[in-house]
Amino acid sequence: MRPKLDFWYEFASTYSYLAALRIEALAKERNVDIAWRPFLLGPIFKAQGWDTSPFNLFPHKGAYMWRDIERLCDAQGLKFRRPEPFPQSSLLAARLALTPEVTPRRAEFSRRVYLVHFAEGARIDDEAVLRGIVESLGLDADTALTQSRSDAVKLGLRQATDEAMRLKLFGAPSFVTLKGEVFWGNDRLETALGWASKERS
Amino acid sequence: MRPKLDFWYEFASTYSYLAALRIEALAKERNVDIAWRPFLLGPIFKAQGWDTSPFNLFPHKGAYMWRDIERLCDAQGLKFRRPEPFPQSSLLAARLALTPEVTPRRAEFSRRVYLVHFAEGARIDDEAVLRGIVESLGLDADTALTQSRSDAVKLGLRQATDEAMRLKLFGAPSFVTLKGEVFWGNDRLETALGWASKERS
Repeated sequence: MRPKLDFWYEFASTYSYLAALRIEALAKERNVDIAWRPFLLGPIFKAQGWDTSPFNLFPHKGAYMWRDIERLCDAQGLKFRRPEPFPQSSLLAARLALTPEVTPRRAEFSRRVYLVHFAEGARIDDEAVLRGIVESLGLDADTALTQSRSDAVKLGLRQATDEAMRLKLFGAPSFVTLKGEVFWGNDRLETALGWASKERS
Repeated sequence: MRPKLDFWYEFASTYSYLAALRIEALAKERNVDIAWRPFLLGPIFKAQGWDTSPFNLFPHKGAYMWRDIERLCDAQGLKFRRPEPFPQSSLLAARLALTPEVTPRRAEFSRRVYLVHFAEGARIDDEAVLRGIVESLGLDADTALTQSRSDAVKLGLRQATDEAMRLKLFGAPSFVTLKGEVFWGNDRLETALGWASKERS
């Protein structure tokens, strides 16, 4: 069995953008398969009494994050444009990622959502923007949007977020190995891949 | 003028332990001078409404931190023993670090405090423990302790913490270059040193 790593990401998360755009190349070098696991951070933040991103609740931390992301995007060769407002609801993007129509292309869909949101500054809570991304993949946007409203997809996203809570995830991106070792943050991606590649199942 | 980096650290901070034990070797490779800047995180946390460490306030984040520190200590070849309680007051340790008696040996004093606290699990809010560390450096512990109670030293620590607030630091360790570029966290040490070494004054 090939080593595997679960990549837990939130579409509104800046550091998830950085991880999403580099994880597949790094995983390939180490022969690790990546499972793309979108989830919502909102309910997790709410459970600890936060009604928005910690980067808004704690302004110094927020100001630092924007500068840090700018430096990291420069180093990674990625464009960056700060979305306004921040954060935006990622509910529809996450549901679309879980639809049968998008699932076979979930990684590429997710990368495109991140680029549109954080490189171009477009809104990810705008159905038209997401429709355009689905279409850019050659997929059927009407089918994907209809499926995104189905009970199965809604439940799937709730279950993913519940699973993230059971794993005690508290931020994104997070990486979880087959044996349950958890790593938090884009900075831990290499370590997480190395750990996953050494785990024997 | 040689490149310089301010190393802001809090004696009760686990990630500051990791940075303190590796910063000088890395700085030497890059010809960067390190200014050891002890400060207190307590007043900074209080200013945003926290009465203890975020690792206690947010239990999932705390549980993750202890596991992360364990893994990082393994990788860095450092022992680790979780201090109880956590965090402990670092007031006396920080004041001692700023005394005229200890200042010429501040880096070594600080490393020893971290090792005693986080490798051996001893209490850093215990005057006898700190006395032992000062003596182990061949310094005069009575002189250092008397100086630690002086208005000059108390004011010095308050001013350092005020400066950290003006720099908008929100955690430790933090690194600040001559031109004011701020980096937060043990994970950013290499990047901060690289940035400092490229800055032209």
